[in-house]
Amino acid sequence: MSEGLHYELLSTCPRTGARRGRIHTPHGTVETPCFMPVGTQGTVKTLGSEDLEALGFELILSNTYHLGLRPGSELVDRLGGLHKFMSWKGAILTDSGGYQVMSLSNMRKITDEGVRFKSHLDGTEMFLTPEQSMKIQDELGVDIAMALDVCPPYPCSRDEAVAAMHQTHRWATRCLEARKKGALFGIVQGGVHEDLRQESADFITKLPFDGFAIGGVSVGEPTEMQRPVVKFAAPLLPKDKPRYLMGVGHPQDIIHAVRCGIDMFDCVLPTRQARHHSLYTMQGRVNAMAQKWAEYNGPHDPESMFPQSERYSAAYLRHLFKAKEPLGARIATLHNLAFYARLMQEIRSAIENDGWEELEERYKNA
Amino acid sequence: MSEGLHYELLSTCPRTGARRGRIHTPHGTVETPCFMPVGTQGTVKTLGSEDLEALGFELILSNTYHLGLRPGSELVDRLGGLHKFMSWKGAILTDSGGYQVMSLSNMRKITDEGVRFKSHLDGTEMFLTPEQSMKIQDELGVDIAMALDVCPPYPCSRDEAVAAMHQTHRWATRCLEARKKGALFGIVQGGVHEDLRQESADFITKLPFDGFAIGGVSVGEPTEMQRPVVKFAAPLLPKDKPRYLMGVGHPQDIIHAVRCGIDMFDCVLPTRQARHHSLYTMQGRVNAMAQKWAEYNGPHDPESMFPQSERYSAAYLRHLFKAKEPLGARIATLHNLAFYARLMQEIRSAIENDGWEELEERYKNA
Repeated sequence: MSEGLHYELLSTCPRTGARRGRIHTPHGTVETPCFMPVGTQGTVKTLGSEDLEALGFELILSNTYHLGLRPGSELVDRLGGLHKFMSWKGAILTDSGGYQVMSLSNMRKITDEGVRFKSHLDGTEMFLTPEQSMKIQDELGVDIAMALDVCPPYPCSRDEAVAAMHQTHRWATRCLEARKKGALFGIVQGGVHEDLRQESADFITKLPFDGFAIGGVSVGEPTEMQRPVVKFAAPLLPKDKPRYLMGVGHPQDIIHAVRCGIDMFDCVLPTRQARHHSLYTMQGRVNAMAQKWAEYNGPHDPESMFPQSERYSAAYLRHLFKAKEPLGARIATLHNLAFYARLMQEIRSAIENDGWEELEERYKNA
Repeated sequence: MSEGLHYELLSTCPRTGARRGRIHTPHGTVETPCFMPVGTQGTVKTLGSEDLEALGFELILSNTYHLGLRPGSELVDRLGGLHKFMSWKGAILTDSGGYQVMSLSNMRKITDEGVRFKSHLDGTEMFLTPEQSMKIQDELGVDIAMALDVCPPYPCSRDEAVAAMHQTHRWATRCLEARKKGALFGIVQGGVHEDLRQESADFITKLPFDGFAIGGVSVGEPTEMQRPVVKFAAPLLPKDKPRYLMGVGHPQDIIHAVRCGIDMFDCVLPTRQARHHSLYTMQGRVNAMAQKWAEYNGPHDPESMFPQSERYSAAYLRHLFKAKEPLGARIATLHNLAFYARLMQEIRSAIENDGWEELEERYKNA
């Protein structure tokens, strides 16, 4: 286990299994359950680090694949690491690069050695191994690295799920050997098959990782297939380490997963939806371009936590989007991340104060 | 004269003619000489009003043509006016819409009644008259409206310059009659011809405008043709009213024009250049995409006034532009507007403290 990371379990809700905890990192303490905004290319799109600080986030996610290609992790290393590069004082987790290799690049071919692919930027042929993924994440200098895994798409056959799991297991050991500094999380695969999830959890959790993730969910499957996997797999993870559900998700999915004992989340939804004019409110998502907002002088959501929401009306935001003004995406991104920040804050408070039913009732339309 | 506007001349530099003053508006006091960032569509591109406040601007410019087409001035009026719409507490000046009609729209045809044109958005045929321009600016509720003028392109014949000037004069009277509330500035035309500038200034400055602008410069002519016009025309304007040089410009052109007695400036340069990766520094403009910045951990300009310049290195900004991240344009815009804000602050200070030579020396490479 890395000396740099320590998980402190503060309390567990006896009725739901939800955990209130803290992750102590070299870049500050992260109150959990937490949501990590996604800063793909070393910035959460449209925002500066000062904006993320103001929103109260303590841990963000960035992408090894993207930063490895551009500007390159060696350059970031020479400049003092990713924290300094993007001027972020909080903690950073990076994924392994594997997911983007699968979803973005062309001509990928997985062997036991690693995965061969062509860059989505310029078609350059590249090769990502567990050792290479660790090297990039070491050079980025992040607080939490993720092991390279094979994340099969949905749907996939049981044979594919088995093969992906076994490859993930072999790479997990190599990642642990290769990671030079900082914490490393292992990833449980196994698709929608309970026996495979059990086998994968048994294997991965025996390894000396600093935390454990459930991978291979939120890859296109319907919500009703995702939740049973989370419900089954979350309790298989050690109680004394952080538990991370990768790529999830919708507010309701987060609430469900916290009940199952998950501590950490990341998702592009709040930021990506914002750029597509879609705002999270307590009454569900609303389309900021809709005609109904054309002359609406108030905020979309009277309960919005976005510090500027009293300043910028729904009518103004609609105008910005209509006029293709870059400020529109920025305001919407701040709005949606403020929604997620509050959601997590209220989840933590509900665990502390035994207020889970009220929380679920409060967010039932969100 | 509008009750809402009052110009206070604090001092005039006896050696240069530069004026230190204040414009008192219904939305606060504006220290002059001043630069107005251009918020074309009700936002300075990439920035919120809180950013402009933080940069210290007191007066911004917005465009009647753009806002009149979208979202429409009647809608802005119903929502409480442009200040409220864009949440800007400072003062606002709008142009008349005439310049954009000339430069952006198709099929424009000028008659004594007004100018017929087709919207650049959807081709709708529209008609802009002096009365219509005043109505739009009244509905926007701005502090300073500009009279509708005819701004001939460069180059143009003397006959065209004469015709544009006479049309501008006839419309000036109609604008004064039509403006319902708030201040109105008249515009002197006359191209590069001193006798026409004299004739235009004689005519326009006899009318009860609240301030006077020199129009028809910075329309494509070389700098060496612009400066003599400013030098000749600025002293023709009344001493007890604000003097505004429209569409200028480069830092050196601003310094020159202040010497000639100009108080107000607007220009898209700092904001537009920012979006094209070009940063103002004390050593001239630099290309933020240049290879030389790839591993440069410091700011582009050690004297940068941008509050976040210590936070975001030249290497990071280059990465953002390379990766087409929206944060790049935002940081560059903040950087350039901070440069202009400091330029104007130091100009005002130089007038107060008899430091003009030092100012010109200091900015000689900018």
